[in-house]
Amino acid sequence: MKSHFHQQLEALRMIVLQMAAKTERAMERALKALNERDEVLAQEVIDGDQEINELELEIDRLSLKLLALEQPMARDLRFIVGSIRMSIDLERIADQAVNIAQRAKFLCQRPPLEPLPALQRLADTAMDMLRVAVASFMNGNVNQARDVCQMDDDADEMNSRVLRTMIEYMIEESRTVERAVQTIIVARCLERVADQTTNIAENVIFIVDGVNIKHHCET
Amino acid sequence: MKSHFHQQLEALRMIVLQMAAKTERAMERALKALNERDEVLAQEVIDGDQEINELELEIDRLSLKLLALEQPMARDLRFIVGSIRMSIDLERIADQAVNIAQRAKFLCQRPPLEPLPALQRLADTAMDMLRVAVASFMNGNVNQARDVCQMDDDADEMNSRVLRTMIEYMIEESRTVERAVQTIIVARCLERVADQTTNIAENVIFIVDGVNIKHHCET
Repeated sequence: MKSHFHQQLEALRMIVLQMAAKTERAMERALKALNERDEVLAQEVIDGDQEINELELEIDRLSLKLLALEQPMARDLRFIVGSIRMSIDLERIADQAVNIAQRAKFLCQRPPLEPLPALQRLADTAMDMLRVAVASFMNGNVNQARDVCQMDDDADEMNSRVLRTMIEYMIEESRTVERAVQTIIVARCLERVADQTTNIAENVIFIVDGVNIKHHCET
Repeated sequence: MKSHFHQQLEALRMIVLQMAAKTERAMERALKALNERDEVLAQEVIDGDQEINELELEIDRLSLKLLALEQPMARDLRFIVGSIRMSIDLERIADQAVNIAQRAKFLCQRPPLEPLPALQRLADTAMDMLRVAVASFMNGNVNQARDVCQMDDDADEMNSRVLRTMIEYMIEESRTVERAVQTIIVARCLERVADQTTNIAENVIFIVDGVNIKHHCET
């Protein structure tokens, strides 16, 4: 039979996974709203953020309680501190989903710009990174976590490509300026999601191996 | 005589304050490089980021050690967890300083745009928030921390104002597009600094009063 402490740790793990699933879904829906020009869906993403914020508070409360009452050691301690960090990153990724949904609402009301393959690839990369990072947390899989760190360079490159293309548009045709600026902001949001996902992956490596690879993700 | 544990807590506090001072200085220098078109200074900010990253790792190590060996309770526990959170925010503010320094390097090499009062006010607000937030941590002053949360609305408003002005520039005169886009990015970096500073202030309230006001900063 599991001890009370291990039941509580398991409960913490479940809340973190729930927050991760909701954040993943918020990102997916924000990108769908952007692609399909769906203003109603965009608004749903914005309204749903409150629920994700509440899960962050719940993770904080439970983590602190476990740290105070149970005097955890080694991997249990790293898991609890890692859960606090993970909730910070998930909350910020969910904020980026809200930000993208706000841009989607603006862009819905204007004629579409040309499709942008670099933006699509950036969105795909950011979502892949997020899914793999969450899976690596779920399975304690350090190799998956290391894969996430490798993918971040591609996200940076795609973000620069979107920026260059949008600058060309704006120079050629001043009517595109407002839409191009909103698109640049979407790309930067996605690039930030990629960065925050890299933090999650580093955090998984910290929990599992007790090694801090922050700022040395390549090692 | 202070116990060994309290000496270690004091050492943690000193490293956090050192990291805060270096981050404040990086932001000040990045903004100076931008205003005075000083490419050498911008490069110094970029090169100096490594030192701030190392302080984050040191805070992580010491906090974990204290959590594992000393079984802290109540305010001491909140202080240690709060220090981990604070180092995350400071590191991200320092990253924004690097980002601003990169834009400054780009903008130095082009003719200056008209002075932008909204950008200057945004920079002043973000720096005020950062200074007050760090002071509130240093003195455990909850009232100062609450002041910081109030200032964030002004930062959001100034960021929107810069965005609108830059869009007008680009529509009127396509030669300004590249510089205007870089300026929009600077304003967004500053707005993020304001957000991350608000996180620091919320964290101070959590450490001192044990109350979590995340997502309810106005209360």
